[in-house]
Amino acid sequence: MTSRLSLQQYMEEVNAEVSDSLQHYLPKEWNVPASLDTAMSYSLMAGGKRIRPLFVIAAAESLGGSREAALPVACAVEMVHTYSLIHDDLPALDNDDLRRGKPTNHKVHGEATAILAGDGLLTHAFYSLTQATTKFHVPAEDTLAMVEELSKMAGPQGMVGGQMADMEGEQGITDLKQLKYIHLHKTGDLIVFSVKAGGRIASASLEQLHILETFGRSLGLAFQIQDDILDLVGNEEKLGKPLQSDLKMQKVTYPYFIGLEQSRAEVKRLTQLAKEAVSSGKIPYPERLLELADFLVHRDH
Amino acid sequence: MTSRLSLQQYMEEVNAEVSDSLQHYLPKEWNVPASLDTAMSYSLMAGGKRIRPLFVIAAAESLGGSREAALPVACAVEMVHTYSLIHDDLPALDNDDLRRGKPTNHKVHGEATAILAGDGLLTHAFYSLTQATTKFHVPAEDTLAMVEELSKMAGPQGMVGGQMADMEGEQGITDLKQLKYIHLHKTGDLIVFSVKAGGRIASASLEQLHILETFGRSLGLAFQIQDDILDLVGNEEKLGKPLQSDLKMQKVTYPYFIGLEQSRAEVKRLTQLAKEAVSSGKIPYPERLLELADFLVHRDH
Repeated sequence: MTSRLSLQQYMEEVNAEVSDSLQHYLPKEWNVPASLDTAMSYSLMAGGKRIRPLFVIAAAESLGGSREAALPVACAVEMVHTYSLIHDDLPALDNDDLRRGKPTNHKVHGEATAILAGDGLLTHAFYSLTQATTKFHVPAEDTLAMVEELSKMAGPQGMVGGQMADMEGEQGITDLKQLKYIHLHKTGDLIVFSVKAGGRIASASLEQLHILETFGRSLGLAFQIQDDILDLVGNEEKLGKPLQSDLKMQKVTYPYFIGLEQSRAEVKRLTQLAKEAVSSGKIPYPERLLELADFLVHRDH
Repeated sequence: MTSRLSLQQYMEEVNAEVSDSLQHYLPKEWNVPASLDTAMSYSLMAGGKRIRPLFVIAAAESLGGSREAALPVACAVEMVHTYSLIHDDLPALDNDDLRRGKPTNHKVHGEATAILAGDGLLTHAFYSLTQATTKFHVPAEDTLAMVEELSKMAGPQGMVGGQMADMEGEQGITDLKQLKYIHLHKTGDLIVFSVKAGGRIASASLEQLHILETFGRSLGLAFQIQDDILDLVGNEEKLGKPLQSDLKMQKVTYPYFIGLEQSRAEVKRLTQLAKEAVSSGKIPYPERLLELADFLVHRDH
């Protein structure tokens, strides 16, 4: 069992396994134009925190599920997250030059290749998802439910809708209701997907899926408010991007609407809500989920 | 039965049903930013020929399958096709101002929205696909096989790879081998997916799937060579775009490599190959597929 590892060790172990697995889904021998393959790998293997894959795997393991079967799902969600970063950074959208302290995809590979690399990662994510059944015998019904949920949570009603609203917000028409819509969808939906999909890998009951959804929904919002706070008062070097970029972009944030202290209190409240949900006794091994929740509130980048 | 309809009537009937169904998958009441919804609809409802949906439905019906169950799959493939056009037309890629005689998506809705509309359509295509099971009781195994195949055929190894190679070709490094790679993947793969998916809806045997693959593969290449020919000698008004844009873009084409007459002969040979495959007696009702094959060779736009 991995439960003897510290959270730090657990995160490093999972991160390494996810990276190996991602490499496996972009194999050297596949018949893909080299420039496209290179651009996809550039962002996918840039060494992020792999928070979403961690949620998939911790959720699967919280119900005694198999990490091996959860890996294709963890890879899928990381591909979707990565594609969204590549497209968000494009000149027509956020026009960012740096991501995780490295030049953004289009800065290195050009705009056209970056668009296609994003398209490729999004499409390939669904391939990776199917491998839970093809390679690891997850029932087809469960994997298809994940496909349906990912397409909703990452699509027009989910992440893409959140990104669109965020972009419109930069043009100065955001109110608190719209800000919540942006946070719930742009970041929250993919985190909800991650924990629920982990649950499905472990054949979660409907009640357990509901608990995991509450956990993901609360924590996803807390995560995004924490991001708003870090952008305001974080450590520039650790963040790998300039501080107060939201202010400079005239983007409204939680601190903008309810102040810094109130925002911190909201992060705490939502995190508590998430932790209580999985501590109800219906989730047999909630420890890693609880630790991850605390980690996200206390992170400084 | 619909077999008494002329091909023209059949195409119009299917086109109308697909358009209705597409409208159903972009419902008025869904919670999506209006600007994103409008941009997605703009291209999806622009009234193309719906060739790929026709292949899905004709293939399903060639095995006695249900049109109703094939419609979500037909919609999925049209969404993927439409997203690929939106992204291909972007300034960083082909920088086209016109598509089907109308201003391209980014010309009307702006570049950022066009990128997100494409992302939204690609993601939503997988949702549409899952509805074959959720709404029409196609076995989950079959729908999951379609998800796997669509993600391959439309992804880095398929359409996106073809698009990348095509873009590199515009920079003057294409040879005949690469041109064939481009045609097979950029256009061919999605047509192969369409006919095979139609087959799966009708519970095709492995042998029947193989026949449909041969049909789609041959016809997909013929279709693309015909496109090359039409770009050279077609009717500008009917095409809805300027003639000889390939020449102007210094894009190599089949006529460039093997001449116009040889290209026409190749279209004929490939079409014959496709028709023979489905006329082998293993496909109970091949008539519409045969008519569609002839239609594609004789089309003028």
